[in-house]
Amino acid sequence: MEYPERFFDDWHVGDRFVSGEATLSREECLDFARRYDPQQFHLDDAAAAASIFRALAASGWLTAALTMRLIVESGVMRGTGVIGAGVDELRWLAPVYPGDTLHVESEVVDLVPNPEGKRFGRMRVRNVTINQHGVAVMSQIANLTVSKRAR
Amino acid sequence: MEYPERFFDDWHVGDRFVSGEATLSREECLDFARRYDPQQFHLDDAAAAASIFRALAASGWLTAALTMRLIVESGVMRGTGVIGAGVDELRWLAPVYPGDTLHVESEVVDLVPNPEGKRFGRMRVRNVTINQHGVAVMSQIANLTVSKRAR
Repeated sequence: MEYPERFFDDWHVGDRFVSGEATLSREECLDFARRYDPQQFHLDDAAAAASIFRALAASGWLTAALTMRLIVESGVMRGTGVIGAGVDELRWLAPVYPGDTLHVESEVVDLVPNPEGKRFGRMRVRNVTINQHGVAVMSQIANLTVSKRAR
Repeated sequence: MEYPERFFDDWHVGDRFVSGEATLSREECLDFARRYDPQQFHLDDAAAAASIFRALAASGWLTAALTMRLIVESGVMRGTGVIGAGVDELRWLAPVYPGDTLHVESEVVDLVPNPEGKRFGRMRVRNVTINQHGVAVMSQIANLTVSKRAR
């Protein structure tokens, strides 16, 4: 699906969108962990088996990064006018393992046009990252700064 | 500094710790953006110059991932007993550019031993990521599940 460029004025609370899918390889999980989250349960099968994860698990920050890619690739926030200001209530709900296929389901939960007259409004979007079994593995509320349509 | 392994029982509200430093290269910024945040202002100098960032900027998720590495490498959470459950109030406060050198300053802000008798307590830690100019570029409150000392 090709999304048109959307401005703050074009969004409504309750708007929903769904990303495509991506499958995490074992090599990507290990590579990310070596670079950014070098804890033994993300790097070593035996240590992972003894951990709460019971098997080699992806770094939660890899799940977050992959979620970002899926949202960007969906094209729903196409254009230069969407900037992430922050995230609330990021939760890692279930482990993500090599071979898992993830997608993201999103819903606009709040729109704050203030301050009036400014070029940007604030949009809050709940993103839920879901695996191939339909299990939510991560949720977050993204706070986005979105350009208003030029008048 | 070498930290001993610490359990939930060993932490106190107000405990502070500081990570080492890491410098972000342009190649790492571009590589991360290509993999996880392929927006033009993270990939292309001209698009970045026209954006709110005014120059090629690192993905906020790279700043988050690098923050994780700095905390892990500090050794302060050494051992297998610390699991990230989630993050609150993640804020990207200022742009991060190639060549910036970051470190993390952390403070324990809450300890929740409940439920009593369980093997884990909940610790909340405020992490602030700071650049070479002393500017806070990212802040977050990490919610950690921490093993209690065996009795």
